Amino acid sequence: MLVNCVAYQDGEKLADISKEEIREYVKRPDCFVWVALFEPTPAELQEMQEEFGLHALAVEDASHGHQRPKIEEYGHSLFTVLQVVEPQGEDLQVGEVEIFVGSNYILSVRVHSERGFKAVRARCESEPHLLKHGSAFVLYALLDAIVDRYFPVLDALESELEKIEEQIFKRNTARSNIEALYSLKQKLMTLKHAVDPLMEATGKLGGARVPQVCAGMQEYFRDVHDHLQRIHATIEGIRDMQATAIQVNLGMINLNETEVTKKLAAWAAIIAIPTLIAGIYGMNFKNMPEYDFPYGYPLSIAVMIVLDLILYVWFTKIKWL
Amino acid sequence: MLVNCVAYQDGEKLADISKEEIREYVKRPDCFVWVALFEPTPAELQEMQEEFGLHALAVEDASHGHQRPKIEEYGHSLFTVLQVVEPQGEDLQVGEVEIFVGSNYILSVRVHSERGFKAVRARCESEPHLLKHGSAFVLYALLDAIVDRYFPVLDALESELEKIEEQIFKRNTARSNIEALYSLKQKLMTLKHAVDPLMEATGKLGGARVPQVCAGMQEYFRDVHDHLQRIHATIEGIRDMQATAIQVNLGMINLNETEVTKKLAAWAAIIAIPTLIAGIYGMNFKNMPEYDFPYGYPLSIAVMIVLDLILYVWFTKIKWL
Amino acid sequence: MLVNCVAYQDGEKLADISKEEIREYVKRPDCFVWVALFEPTPAELQEMQEEFGLHALAVEDASHGHQRPKIEEYGHSLFTVLQVVEPQGEDLQVGEVEIFVGSNYILSVRVHSERGFKAVRARCESEPHLLKHGSAFVLYALLDAIVDRYFPVLDALESELEKIEEQIFKRNTARSNIEALYSLKQKLMTLKHAVDPLMEATGKLGGARVPQVCAGMQEYFRDVHDHLQRIHATIEGIRDMQATAIQVNLGMINLNETEVTKKLAAWAAIIAIPTLIAGIYGMNFKNMPEYDFPYGYPLSIAVMIVLDLILYVWFTKIKWL
Amino acid sequence: MLVNCVAYQDGEKLADISKEEIREYVKRPDCFVWVALFEPTPAELQEMQEEFGLHALAVEDASHGHQRPKIEEYGHSLFTVLQVVEPQGEDLQVGEVEIFVGSNYILSVRVHSERGFKAVRARCESEPHLLKHGSAFVLYALLDAIVDRYFPVLDALESELEKIEEQIFKRNTARSNIEALYSLKQKLMTLKHAVDPLMEATGKLGGARVPQVCAGMQEYFRDVHDHLQRIHATIEGIRDMQATAIQVNLGMINLNETEVTKKLAAWAAIIAIPTLIAGIYGMNFKNMPEYDFPYGYPLSIAVMIVLDLILYVWFTKIKWL
Amino acid sequence: MLVNCVAYQDGEKLADISKEEIREYVKRPDCFVWVALFEPTPAELQEMQEEFGLHALAVEDASHGHQRPKIEEYGHSLFTVLQVVEPQGEDLQVGEVEIFVGSNYILSVRVHSERGFKAVRARCESEPHLLKHGSAFVLYALLDAIVDRYFPVLDALESELEKIEEQIFKRNTARSNIEALYSLKQKLMTLKHAVDPLMEATGKLGGARVPQVCAGMQEYFRDVHDHLQRIHATIEGIRDMQATAIQVNLGMINLNETEVTKKLAAWAAIIAIPTLIAGIYGMNFKNMPEYDFPYGYPLSIAVMIVLDLILYVWFTKIKWL
Repeated sequence: MLVNCVAYQDGEKLADISKEEIREYVKRPDCFVWVALFEPTPAELQEMQEEFGLHALAVEDASHGHQRPKIEEYGHSLFTVLQVVEPQGEDLQVGEVEIFVGSNYILSVRVHSERGFKAVRARCESEPHLLKHGSAFVLYALLDAIVDRYFPVLDALESELEKIEEQIFKRNTARSNIEALYSLKQKLMTLKHAVDPLMEATGKLGGARVPQVCAGMQEYFRDVHDHLQRIHATIEGIRDMQATAIQVNLGMINLNETEVTKKLAAWAAIIAIPTLIAGIYGMNFKNMPEYDFPYGYPLSIAVMIVLDLILYVWFTKIKWL
Repeated sequence: MLVNCVAYQDGEKLADISKEEIREYVKRPDCFVWVALFEPTPAELQEMQEEFGLHALAVEDASHGHQRPKIEEYGHSLFTVLQVVEPQGEDLQVGEVEIFVGSNYILSVRVHSERGFKAVRARCESEPHLLKHGSAFVLYALLDAIVDRYFPVLDALESELEKIEEQIFKRNTARSNIEALYSLKQKLMTLKHAVDPLMEATGKLGGARVPQVCAGMQEYFRDVHDHLQRIHATIEGIRDMQATAIQVNLGMINLNETEVTKKLAAWAAIIAIPTLIAGIYGMNFKNMPEYDFPYGYPLSIAVMIVLDLILYVWFTKIKWL
Repeated sequence: MLVNCVAYQDGEKLADISKEEIREYVKRPDCFVWVALFEPTPAELQEMQEEFGLHALAVEDASHGHQRPKIEEYGHSLFTVLQVVEPQGEDLQVGEVEIFVGSNYILSVRVHSERGFKAVRARCESEPHLLKHGSAFVLYALLDAIVDRYFPVLDALESELEKIEEQIFKRNTARSNIEALYSLKQKLMTLKHAVDPLMEATGKLGGARVPQVCAGMQEYFRDVHDHLQRIHATIEGIRDMQATAIQVNLGMINLNETEVTKKLAAWAAIIAIPTLIAGIYGMNFKNMPEYDFPYGYPLSIAVMIVLDLILYVWFTKIKWL
Repeated sequence: MLVNCVAYQDGEKLADISKEEIREYVKRPDCFVWVALFEPTPAELQEMQEEFGLHALAVEDASHGHQRPKIEEYGHSLFTVLQVVEPQGEDLQVGEVEIFVGSNYILSVRVHSERGFKAVRARCESEPHLLKHGSAFVLYALLDAIVDRYFPVLDALESELEKIEEQIFKRNTARSNIEALYSLKQKLMTLKHAVDPLMEATGKLGGARVPQVCAGMQEYFRDVHDHLQRIHATIEGIRDMQATAIQVNLGMINLNETEVTKKLAAWAAIIAIPTLIAGIYGMNFKNMPEYDFPYGYPLSIAVMIVLDLILYVWFTKIKWL
Repeated sequence: MLVNCVAYQDGEKLADISKEEIREYVKRPDCFVWVALFEPTPAELQEMQEEFGLHALAVEDASHGHQRPKIEEYGHSLFTVLQVVEPQGEDLQVGEVEIFVGSNYILSVRVHSERGFKAVRARCESEPHLLKHGSAFVLYALLDAIVDRYFPVLDALESELEKIEEQIFKRNTARSNIEALYSLKQKLMTLKHAVDPLMEATGKLGGARVPQVCAGMQEYFRDVHDHLQRIHATIEGIRDMQATAIQVNLGMINLNETEVTKKLAAWAAIIAIPTLIAGIYGMNFKNMPEYDFPYGYPLSIAVMIVLDLILYVWFTKIKWL
């Protein structure tokens, strides 16, 4: 689906144009066309391939989808694959944005992603002095927008970890903690798979030798790269704590087991002692003088109670109860 | 076994030729011969070595088999070793494909692998504008086909992991989960050993300084490299989750142990309490007034039942039952 | 809030100047202005941006905060982000210092940090032969001061580890040890996130190709880099021991469990044996001669006690009690 | 002990020569001497040092032994240290081979190793067209022979792992499995310490800038390097599976513990229930009508049996028995 | 404390000189002064700083101590920090040696270390052909001596590991093993912190681009580097086995737990069965024919014993006892 098709010159919007007019505008010097597609049909993609002379391999990747984030040079043009990560209920939904950039065009293809890039277009058009840089600035603006959308996802994962950390030393939370930790890990991996390859790729755009189309924009791409490094470092930090938390959880489970065993042992003793005494006074020897004591019975019960009280206090003192 | 022996010129098939004619066609400029062998005898390999002037070390590797995937330059020719990974029942079967490439020949040797490369030949012949690139394009097409065959294997491993993840927090699945996780790990390692060295090797064909025979094909080999990176990243992701899943499994086993101990303790208490009461009323003191109560017996039974009910409710409440 | 605004020339303080005068002093050759801000308002930052011609992206980072430590070149100027780590009760508080450096100015922005840099200013002013180096020396002095403040934090973490190590093989300390180890890990990560990226960044200032503004100061920045490496190595050492300590802790928990189970078993046997004997002498066979022995009862009790003493000694000997 | 001392020219053996003649042959152009020593005395080593002008540090390393595998350049000569790994009963025996190579000599020193290199000499002499390359080819042949001897050791370790994998999910094998896994790890480390540093060192001989003495032999050394990479990858694979197997083993131990606890609980219940009933009918209440039932006793026994059967079936059903 | 102050020329000792004479000898070409300090006062250090023109940052590091091993260039001079590791009872004591090297002086500062370097001086003076290299050779000799002192420490750690490995599969050694493993790890880390940074630093002195003062000594420094690599590899090997040993230890603890539980279960059954029988014959039914059997009592006892023998044999057979 064609979302948008606009021609720009000198940082200013020229006009909304039709697909047929692309050919013409692309030829003009200092002019570039920005096309946005949403879940395009193969036919739409092919049309664009012809308009802009896109490389067959890049178009194939775009139509297959499920690519790894990357930035590839094809001659003087760039092919960029990005993953957008959007929370959806408890899970994370991964969409894809492919961007084809040449000196006189930029084509963005959005797949499996709810949120569009209207705000990016608005921002670009409100900063003509920057948009003068041409299609590379639009690429930067799109990258920046997508990377900025990782931050709230990351914050949510940090909060999840903090919630688990609050629970982890409490009793009887082991099962829910371990489930939460596994689920956290899954989401972390999803985000990591979106961020890490992109970080590597943007590193090249902010360095010394950059593709021609991005010349003069290094500081901007380095800024995106820096944001990705920040996200990467935070992800690694959460991963590290999460791994430790799983070990701690295992320790807590075993500690709990020990405590249950201690309780079992303590109560077993408290019940077994009077049972033993009752057993003794259930013996049938002829010659058991206690049987004839007038207070034999209550005394025996009293002994049972006293012994149990002593045991109870003792077990409480050594923290088995 | 000779599967195929065909001469090509300018991207077009010239003719199916016999082994004896190879010598002749190889001499023609702009012409190359594509030979496919299946589990060749040492004699067949030696014949080919003489026809194409293959390096002794490369032929030795090919005849020994069990090589690590690699791409090696011998003068102006390339020697490529690939592993094909095919599902076979519950296990993965590893076969081998060796490819010798010179500017005017390509020789593929397939060992321990069911599936041939007819489709690759068909694809190449249907794209004469690409086949014009010569033997290097055939190398690309074979690499691409083999790498594409890793994806369904990888998908199957991802499904295995997901199945285990669905089971892992359920009770009494620990034994089957741990077996499944170990088996998954074994298969992952098999795939990893096929993919990782190849990724490293193709990286060189897609970079700045490529072997002469592959000149002008960088974008194609980079595409293969990119697919391998994608597979590599997914394998690492599965490995990471699988390692965490094993830890989680250990946690679940211990959690289960604790639950069994709790149940043991609870039922032990529920049986021990009436046993104690019965013991007390089995004592032989003369002076036990309860013995003469008309309802002594049913009352004692009632006390037992009431105490047990209280215990049962209590244990249910604290989740020990 | 503007803390300070001073002009320097030839290593000597010229004068405390007002914001309005900055413009003038910055123009003088060999003169530089050192401005210190504390939690500035966006307006204050913008003012400085205009005075010193700071890059928009750097100012944006500074106003957003929560940056990763880094040193970035923007043309001939540097933008530095540092994290200060200050103990606050049991936890670590992370503040941020951003430093903008040009050949004729240095602007430091301190956020969420109690301790200012008066001492740094005093040190600089007391070493005019070094301060002659200009704004780069002030950058060095600030870096050096902030890095030096990491050492007491690190020492505190080392002491924490030592305290845990003293406890870890004692009985009944598992729960507090595991909590202490997790908390230690959290603090370590906080410090690590401040130190590691900075180490990477300062490495560039001490190497062969340094930004122009830092020329001739390599040995100083290498010294800071070396301190950071030392901190880094110590953090990694603590992390490694902490990971081992968590494993050891798990071992101790399980060892303790075994000891509890042994005690349970031993006491169960000590109670069960006399219970069995009492049970036997509670049987109602007609023909039990012991019943008529005059010392049957005390003898049976004696047998119980003797057997229990034997068991007790035995269990003590095999260390189950 | 001098094993062998032979002069070669143009790939052909000239003569077995005495130590005294070395001096003479070494001077001839295109001629080289191959000396093989077995556990030489310090005097023998010193003699050779003088004959060939070996570097003092290299000779010192050779006489001390217990070196790390390495290939070092001393001027135009090479000093190579290799470890040979030979199975000896259940363990691995590590021997050492040092090789000094100059353009006109090769000196091999074998220590703590049973198997000599007669076969290597025979192979070299049977391939005069290759031996023409001079001492570097002998170095290759020795490297190749030693590396080839790692493969059977590696295969044995793979078989060990497979044997353990067959056992690991069986009950009551945990103790022997864990011992076998630890022993496997020890052997793996021994092999790894022989292979990894050598792999690094041979990498340099197969690359772009090689020592003069090895010029023109890159493809051969790359082949050795490739074999070492294969061994390295397999070792890492075994290590990885072995680490997972240890975790799995721990899981199986805990699973077994749970099963024992379940059995304990089930049988405890099966014994405790009739004990309780017997206890109840051991009470001394006057008014217990069952006592006078004619079938009271057999009925009570029947109730016990029936309850136990129900319990038994139930426990079998939930897999506690 | 000044230990020694000697002037050398052409590899020969000129004279023991006083501090005041240093100035003079340093000026002579081809002459160098070797000064050894032991735990110097700040004043002594300052004196040396003035004599040799040492860099303020290096002297500051030396006077603070607790540095990370490193080799730093300051102009044409080198500043080296080394850690000496000496066994002290059960623990390892870490001392520090700082070495300042210029073309005409070498100054060694020893702190917290018992053993001096008399032997090094003696060795240097006994090899005038090597000492001709000047101060760089002394630096090598000191490095070599300090690195050689790591070997006995390393051997002791290897023996410790072997001792633990002999114990680890024995019963009832878990507690002492885990303590020994943790202590081993602590010592390993101490040695590692001395060795690893130094290995990195010496690598630079043995490579292609070395500081001027060390020119022509590469092979010697490479030899030191190689020894450090050997130590490093051994440390990593011990660390790896130690980590596995901790896991194995955990497995043994849990295995032991299982064995205790099995014993508990077996003995519980052996006591519970006769208790049940006694309970049954303690029932008060009127109509229990066994009560009147003449051999009822001994028969019941016999049944108890027979059942217990059967259980005992059974439990022994399934290895629960």
